[in-house]
Amino acid sequence: MKNIVTIGGGTGSFVLLSGLKRHPVSLSAIVSMADDGGSTGVLRDELGVLPPGDIRQCLVALSDSSDEMRQLMNYRFERGALKGHSFGNLLLGALEKINGGFLAGLKEAVKILNVKGEVIPVTADAVNLFLDLKNGKTIKGEAAINRNSMLENIGIRRLYLKPRARANEHALERIKKADIIVIGPGNFYCSIIPNLLVDGIADAIRASKATVIFNCNLVNKNGHTERFTLDDYVDTINEYLGGSRIDFVIFNGKKPSKALVQKYGKKHEFLVPFKKEDRAERKYKVIVTDLLSTALQKYAKADKLAKYRAFIRHDVEKLAKIIMFISEIEENKDIIQKII
Amino acid sequence: MKNIVTIGGGTGSFVLLSGLKRHPVSLSAIVSMADDGGSTGVLRDELGVLPPGDIRQCLVALSDSSDEMRQLMNYRFERGALKGHSFGNLLLGALEKINGGFLAGLKEAVKILNVKGEVIPVTADAVNLFLDLKNGKTIKGEAAINRNSMLENIGIRRLYLKPRARANEHALERIKKADIIVIGPGNFYCSIIPNLLVDGIADAIRASKATVIFNCNLVNKNGHTERFTLDDYVDTINEYLGGSRIDFVIFNGKKPSKALVQKYGKKHEFLVPFKKEDRAERKYKVIVTDLLSTALQKYAKADKLAKYRAFIRHDVEKLAKIIMFISEIEENKDIIQKII
Repeated sequence: MKNIVTIGGGTGSFVLLSGLKRHPVSLSAIVSMADDGGSTGVLRDELGVLPPGDIRQCLVALSDSSDEMRQLMNYRFERGALKGHSFGNLLLGALEKINGGFLAGLKEAVKILNVKGEVIPVTADAVNLFLDLKNGKTIKGEAAINRNSMLENIGIRRLYLKPRARANEHALERIKKADIIVIGPGNFYCSIIPNLLVDGIADAIRASKATVIFNCNLVNKNGHTERFTLDDYVDTINEYLGGSRIDFVIFNGKKPSKALVQKYGKKHEFLVPFKKEDRAERKYKVIVTDLLSTALQKYAKADKLAKYRAFIRHDVEKLAKIIMFISEIEENKDIIQKII
Repeated sequence: MKNIVTIGGGTGSFVLLSGLKRHPVSLSAIVSMADDGGSTGVLRDELGVLPPGDIRQCLVALSDSSDEMRQLMNYRFERGALKGHSFGNLLLGALEKINGGFLAGLKEAVKILNVKGEVIPVTADAVNLFLDLKNGKTIKGEAAINRNSMLENIGIRRLYLKPRARANEHALERIKKADIIVIGPGNFYCSIIPNLLVDGIADAIRASKATVIFNCNLVNKNGHTERFTLDDYVDTINEYLGGSRIDFVIFNGKKPSKALVQKYGKKHEFLVPFKKEDRAERKYKVIVTDLLSTALQKYAKADKLAKYRAFIRHDVEKLAKIIMFISEIEENKDIIQKII
């Protein structure tokens, strides 16, 4: 079985893993540990635990337990002092406390949730994400950085973790043995890049013999990557990796409905642009394909507002299929003469 | 297999069920729903759920899942807004919300915890315990009644639920089909009697063909039952049952260490007195036997303070064995001529 390592966090990883787990591969999800917002942030502050939110989403994606159990893990309390806490975050917090450490607690969660594959925190150190702007100001914390819509206009001087974080040894091992490494999709500066800021991760990816795939986001983020083209994403990742290491980029070529594009446009979120002719030569292959989820569009007849309620989202199965397809190409690259 | 129905709540039911589940019997635990203190009280107030605490203890007692899972269920958060909440209570609260009702949520909890036997809330109505004193005052709520140490001195006029509660149909069925009904041990006015206040429960017990056993507490409760003898307990229960219905009383005849008795005496908690000659004739048989837990006493050599750290507690196995013994007597009562 192919060893696939995913790198990310949050909903992006959830979607990716939900699709990949239906295929006969060995999955290891490396997950960012920089989150400090919402329920996760409160638990970090009040209980002094490591951030559970991104880990929870990956556990649920890879869980083979009942739908009820998965629903329970994502349930958010709606009232009182518990308001906003997801039950799964409380589970991870309690297990960390009982077992005397995040990794030991995670082991128990994996058993309780019957998780297929591995969920690996990129670091077991308690870290915070910092961002220095070109105007000399510093933004502290993932949630604050996420909310800030002036990053691109002012310009980012440096994104870093404080204190410096050592990579989880297990993450390094899995990267070393990976056949395929999949980066993204996800919140670029808040979920994806923070993984590459952990000491040892970028070196390990550069040194690995794996095929490295970047799942480009569908939509640019307001104030963060609003003016990014596909090539800008790749250049930025390669920069944080310390060298050109992306082999393939998976890019959505299917246009969403006009209504959806307008809805996103109002929030200053635009489809990621890509033109072949933007660059004379690329060191990476770009696979353009339909990646869009049509989950809500199916109900359009019964639900006249469906097109407004819909989101521009990856389809879990389409995303997984194209990764499996790349894996086939790589396995047969000796006999394939050319991919145009 | 014999159908055993236990009636109670809290730690008393936990101890009883933990012992009984090791024997080949069919167990149904009927549980009081009047608790409104601690974590349970906060969840009732803030989430508007039914009281989870007593149910949780019975679920854990009958759970066949791992020790880690059982430990998790009883884990209490120590800091922040979650302080004092037991994880299991949060689980039951979330499941009630997700499944749209306490009984539906409980069904899911039973699956998750791999519960052997049944845990049955005595009622699915949201009720509060009230107590009218002989001085005309009313105490509202189980927690307030539990804390009050003047009940016995002032005198209890009436203990009741408000609003009136209908019995859970499933509880009535189980009582009807029971071979053995075990009442107690447990907090007398706060965990045991509240079950008998639910409309239909006392009638069902009186009407059932089961052998009814009362597990007498080891120690009287300060200000509640401080001057009770064994006979007072039985008389009071029979009063709430609406007729003499207790067949057997299990009573501890083993004296705890002087140090332990002194430790309890300081809190005005004294061993329940029983003298055969107190009453000319009893309608119930009293089985006097050693029921004491020696869990901590075993470590006495290594731990010089063990005797001070110990508690006067039922031994789970001794308690279960004597119930199984009574069950044997009842099965063979046609051939046994006399029990002296």
